[in-house]
Amino acid sequence: MRRYIIGVDVGGTSVKFGKFNLEGVLLEKWNIRTDRSENGENILSNIAESIKLMVDLKEIKGIGIGVPGPVKDNIVVHCVNLNWGRKDLVQELSFLLQDKDIMIRAGNDANVAAAGEMYKGAARGYNTVVMYTLGTGIGGGIVLNGEMMEGVNGAGAELGHTIVDFRHNFPCNCGKKGCLETVASATGIVNLAKEKLIRSKLRSPLRRFETFSAKKVIDYAKEGDYISKQTIEEAMRYLALAMANISLTLDPEIILIGGGVSHAGPYLIDLIEKYFYQMTNPFIKQANIQIASLGNDAGIYGCAYLIQ
Amino acid sequence: MRRYIIGVDVGGTSVKFGKFNLEGVLLEKWNIRTDRSENGENILSNIAESIKLMVDLKEIKGIGIGVPGPVKDNIVVHCVNLNWGRKDLVQELSFLLQDKDIMIRAGNDANVAAAGEMYKGAARGYNTVVMYTLGTGIGGGIVLNGEMMEGVNGAGAELGHTIVDFRHNFPCNCGKKGCLETVASATGIVNLAKEKLIRSKLRSPLRRFETFSAKKVIDYAKEGDYISKQTIEEAMRYLALAMANISLTLDPEIILIGGGVSHAGPYLIDLIEKYFYQMTNPFIKQANIQIASLGNDAGIYGCAYLIQ
Repeated sequence: MRRYIIGVDVGGTSVKFGKFNLEGVLLEKWNIRTDRSENGENILSNIAESIKLMVDLKEIKGIGIGVPGPVKDNIVVHCVNLNWGRKDLVQELSFLLQDKDIMIRAGNDANVAAAGEMYKGAARGYNTVVMYTLGTGIGGGIVLNGEMMEGVNGAGAELGHTIVDFRHNFPCNCGKKGCLETVASATGIVNLAKEKLIRSKLRSPLRRFETFSAKKVIDYAKEGDYISKQTIEEAMRYLALAMANISLTLDPEIILIGGGVSHAGPYLIDLIEKYFYQMTNPFIKQANIQIASLGNDAGIYGCAYLIQ
Repeated sequence: MRRYIIGVDVGGTSVKFGKFNLEGVLLEKWNIRTDRSENGENILSNIAESIKLMVDLKEIKGIGIGVPGPVKDNIVVHCVNLNWGRKDLVQELSFLLQDKDIMIRAGNDANVAAAGEMYKGAARGYNTVVMYTLGTGIGGGIVLNGEMMEGVNGAGAELGHTIVDFRHNFPCNCGKKGCLETVASATGIVNLAKEKLIRSKLRSPLRRFETFSAKKVIDYAKEGDYISKQTIEEAMRYLALAMANISLTLDPEIILIGGGVSHAGPYLIDLIEKYFYQMTNPFIKQANIQIASLGNDAGIYGCAYLIQ
């Protein structure tokens, strides 16, 4: 009996697996290393082998896969992080598993994470969700009426690369400047803090370090350090701007923040809300901006959602 | 036999009507004045009377209505321009017409215009369309997979009020500053031109006038006047920014510009494209930015689409 769903969240350094029952209860999870050698040719076969080792294929209803790149109609358009070009995941994985009765679905990892939060996390009960995953970069996920926003080129919901800043000109990995990611991700927070340290002569505990993390800036901000506070406030103002513009575009039911930076919790939400209302539609009286709840498991939950 | 569809595009000064056959061919159109007195109480009864005078109700399959305010599930949330609060158009118009077999549907006017262009205009053949109507203000319309973007509060697609400018601080009618409308509508073009005239000492034919229209600025720009050219270029850069951010969010099949300002045609598209590619996803190689084709009739066509 096909009573399990497998969620596979493929990242640049590791692949996360989750085994779920048909109700979406996570029964077991495990990881393997992402082998990016030989143009990432081994990744899918390693995934297939790992699934076979852990679960009897005859018991699998479907496999959902999240990929860190644009995906359109279950086909990966390209994926720099995995050294993949265009890839038909359904066909290739089906061939590797030699079981045509296993349903295979794929989506962009950040969209899938948003779907996961909707399925079993902080956005449960909603069906129109926007999610910002604030890590080294910013992943953007959009689910509209239960469907992930793929866009015509698979490039929908690239929210980290919407342009919000014309002041700092920090370079983004994408080649542009002014992207949300350059001013509101962990990298962005460090960018802003370093600039403030150079431009001001104020004391700050940050001056003790040659390099420091966004977490350090947030911790010092909470302790009252002026430069750290100004940094986090500015980063959250940019995020609030992005969210206000999203609410004027999609008017979603809920906006989530996830990723490492979001662990700072209500402190960030308060700052975001302070600016959000100044910039959104005046008749939106109550934003529903929340912290995501599934952490690193959002991806595998979303992969399981793809098989519903 | 119910062989006609009526499109009703309600504006602040006049109501436009279109009589269509079931294939969406426009057979006849007419206007009445919008009577905003007594909290707009007469508007719907005037619409009902006008339809009765022009068409035999027994021949009407349905009536689609576009309204200049947020609409959610056929209910007007509120509408400042018509002095309406919350209004259930289906129930009220059904009651006025005394014919329950006439299907009634409603939508926000700018969303409806985008749907009209998709149905019979420049976006024919697509089903994911974003449209900016550049007039005195900027109306935003979004159709995703054939459905108008209403949002949870009926406030979706308010694209004229997304914030793109932190430099000029022109006040917007909505109470905010920095809205796209303040720098890229006809009003916005005049705002920018006036500021440039004050800040620079360069000669310009615009200096001959106490007040001037956006059309004048566009005409002088085409003739080579430096200040006018700089003005239009700046306005279109803001519009390109808004479009780039939309493409990073929805990745639509086509983006349209309509409204009075769009009559400047390819001159504007060239300027928009120049900036758009610098600001969107680097792997979007070809934008599909076009001029809308239905002019003021986009609304009634979109209303007819609602009855499909």
